[in-house]
Amino acid sequence: MKISMYQASVPMFIRMLNNLAAVLDKGAAHAEAKKIDPSVLVNARLYPDMLPLARQVQIAGDNAKGVAARLAGLEPPKYEDTETSFPDLKGRIQKTISYLNTLRPEQIDGSEERSFTLQIRGQPVTFQGMPYLLNHAVPNFYFHVTTAYDILRHSGVELGKADFLGTR
Amino acid sequence: MKISMYQASVPMFIRMLNNLAAVLDKGAAHAEAKKIDPSVLVNARLYPDMLPLARQVQIAGDNAKGVAARLAGLEPPKYEDTETSFPDLKGRIQKTISYLNTLRPEQIDGSEERSFTLQIRGQPVTFQGMPYLLNHAVPNFYFHVTTAYDILRHSGVELGKADFLGTR
Repeated sequence: MKISMYQASVPMFIRMLNNLAAVLDKGAAHAEAKKIDPSVLVNARLYPDMLPLARQVQIAGDNAKGVAARLAGLEPPKYEDTETSFPDLKGRIQKTISYLNTLRPEQIDGSEERSFTLQIRGQPVTFQGMPYLLNHAVPNFYFHVTTAYDILRHSGVELGKADFLGTR
Repeated sequence: MKISMYQASVPMFIRMLNNLAAVLDKGAAHAEAKKIDPSVLVNARLYPDMLPLARQVQIAGDNAKGVAARLAGLEPPKYEDTETSFPDLKGRIQKTISYLNTLRPEQIDGSEERSFTLQIRGQPVTFQGMPYLLNHAVPNFYFHVTTAYDILRHSGVELGKADFLGTR
């Protein structure tokens, strides 16, 4: 039966974005319990030249919607990066999931060899659907979801692997 | 054409383990340049109750060989966790990649519905090949590879996304 391009992308992105939203809930609850200004966590980084939590969440979502749209041959919607709080970031995730839910399997399946050109550091790079998804999009997505989780763990939020993997 | 179970597992694991080995090289070079005892980096953590770099690397590899072996219906090889240095960890990665290279596509393809039982926190849990790979094994693998990278970034090693994604 093999894995369809849809199965390897949209449901996985939605699952992990839901898990990330639940991880953010724990971050918000931790800030409240410890009387920490939540914006300290929203702006927390693992290193001065790494991106803060808010950007990790925004980029994870942008990656998901960008990849899914490109595989479907659509222009991904653009969202302004205006989120400054946990509720804002959760709203951004929900908006992204709502968009992903508009994409039907038949729009994405069959995109294994579909090619498209992206600007990477100012240079046009042409990708084919399957190698793009497996070698570029999926690792990039997981990079930002994991780093968001790692920022909150590093900030003392009590999270475990089950929060990352989810139970759905 | 769709994505085969082999395509979605073994070559991706090998690619990311090679990237991780190159990231460790940069960690070792950083320790030498800054006259830092390399074991400080090998034992570095993002938080006291998170696992250190060495364990992240070991678990990422164990995940890769465990998943691939189970999909092939084989018992994964067991490696002792004895690595205490960058060269040790690179050796562990190479040993894991050598094992992965013994697995042929025809052993893993068709495992979408193959079921197997794992002990998770002492409880037997039965998984089917495809949901196991996409919902459990792949996120878990990326979690540990990303966290290994994040530990080194957090420790001041100069790494960029290109090191994580690789150029192969």
